[in-house]
Amino acid sequence: MSMHTGTVYLVGAGPGDPELLTVKARKLLDDADVVCHDNLADDRIVESCPETTERMYVGKRPGPDGERTTQEEINRLLVRLAREGKDVVRLKGGDPTVFGRGGEEAEHLAAAGIDFDIVPGITSAVAAPGVAGIPVTHRDHASCVTVVTGHEDPTKAESALDWDALAATVRAGGTLVILMGVRRLPDNVAALRSAGVPADTPAAMVERATREDEFTVTGTLDTIVERRDEVGIEPPAVTVVGDVVSVRDRVAEYLDGAPSVGVPSFADTAVSERGVE
Amino acid sequence: MSMHTGTVYLVGAGPGDPELLTVKARKLLDDADVVCHDNLADDRIVESCPETTERMYVGKRPGPDGERTTQEEINRLLVRLAREGKDVVRLKGGDPTVFGRGGEEAEHLAAAGIDFDIVPGITSAVAAPGVAGIPVTHRDHASCVTVVTGHEDPTKAESALDWDALAATVRAGGTLVILMGVRRLPDNVAALRSAGVPADTPAAMVERATREDEFTVTGTLDTIVERRDEVGIEPPAVTVVGDVVSVRDRVAEYLDGAPSVGVPSFADTAVSERGVE
Repeated sequence: MSMHTGTVYLVGAGPGDPELLTVKARKLLDDADVVCHDNLADDRIVESCPETTERMYVGKRPGPDGERTTQEEINRLLVRLAREGKDVVRLKGGDPTVFGRGGEEAEHLAAAGIDFDIVPGITSAVAAPGVAGIPVTHRDHASCVTVVTGHEDPTKAESALDWDALAATVRAGGTLVILMGVRRLPDNVAALRSAGVPADTPAAMVERATREDEFTVTGTLDTIVERRDEVGIEPPAVTVVGDVVSVRDRVAEYLDGAPSVGVPSFADTAVSERGVE
Repeated sequence: MSMHTGTVYLVGAGPGDPELLTVKARKLLDDADVVCHDNLADDRIVESCPETTERMYVGKRPGPDGERTTQEEINRLLVRLAREGKDVVRLKGGDPTVFGRGGEEAEHLAAAGIDFDIVPGITSAVAAPGVAGIPVTHRDHASCVTVVTGHEDPTKAESALDWDALAATVRAGGTLVILMGVRRLPDNVAALRSAGVPADTPAAMVERATREDEFTVTGTLDTIVERRDEVGIEPPAVTVVGDVVSVRDRVAEYLDGAPSVGVPSFADTAVSERGVE
């Protein structure tokens, strides 16, 4: 039995594009004994690991073979692997501490006496709007940005999110970024509207940001649900609410790789672009 | 005169550690004709560029020789360099769109007809708390995170920040991250307190995150100003307010490189550690 205990690295894989991995993450992936990954980390990143690296799928959603791993099982697995003397990369989409349960895994590792490190990654909360030409802050438009997940049901009494407070930041000129909110978009929009956010507040959805088939649709709080349906936006997608969305209209023509390049009115043409793909 | 027009890359340099550059940023820095950088991008990153790369300091604060560049001058410089046929990396600390004026530079470039790209970087708003063992979100503690800059005067009537709205998100269990808020910390804390955020809300400051001399001090809204002064926290530092700060207490002992490793009560020992440095 090994006397050496391994280290667990909680590593952010970034928003998708393998080139948006950090240099540090790349090195750790090249040196790890085991990589534990889930659905949110891009497949190309996992596939780029050395062939000798053990790869373990620990996705919480059903995988190709109906796999499904609970958080408790992941916690135990990380401890067991480290105790076997292995250096483990726990690879997470985006940043490990932004809705990534990195904090929970860190607490579990510490409680078990396992050394670990947190290696930040680029969160899609910032990168998805950014690459679509939407800066989450802007001196003329937004002096703060708030990030939430949209998969909670805002009509439930026990919802952890205070939509009145979120709406207050938007009404005060802040940007709201909703992760994982494709399906619940109508509920989230309704919650913002009934908390007094104006119907003409600009809104955008960026699907599969930084991937080759990245796609952006824009509108307002009043129209974004309809536009989501017209265009057929599917998860994973990031939703942005706030005046900063209007910046895209002014810059997209000259932005490398922006899907609606060369079109003056981005809102109308997003649909037709998707149509011709 | 060159017929070719260059491209301007608005590139995030990340929070400090050169290994937290993205692979994409590293490649662009290696291939650029010119790198325009300011004080917020780590010196080691600029120094790591090939010797043949032209380096231009465009910092907005006075440099070693009293240099000072206005945003308007930077905008004009980027356009001129691209029209000279040069591929330009505009390197910014953190992410170019998080209080980085990347949006403004993008608008200026697009208005001038210059092709550009936005290359996300790791924002210290997420990374600084993260590497200190403070996840900005956590299922048990925080379902949203809001990022602001603290250098505005919250007592000014025309302050763009609505501290009541910010306080509402904190009272609802959200995390508040204040960038560039070392000097105005007393004003910001007072604004939160008078908007009803409890005095015992945990708070932390992370100075020079991801650098070798990274240092973290923790306390509560009631004590953090005093602790800042005891420890002598200097810019650049990130302030975190919210229950997630308590996670650090449970994980720091096993967190690689965390400055208060092995000490059960982080709040008290942060000072003594700084004392023996």
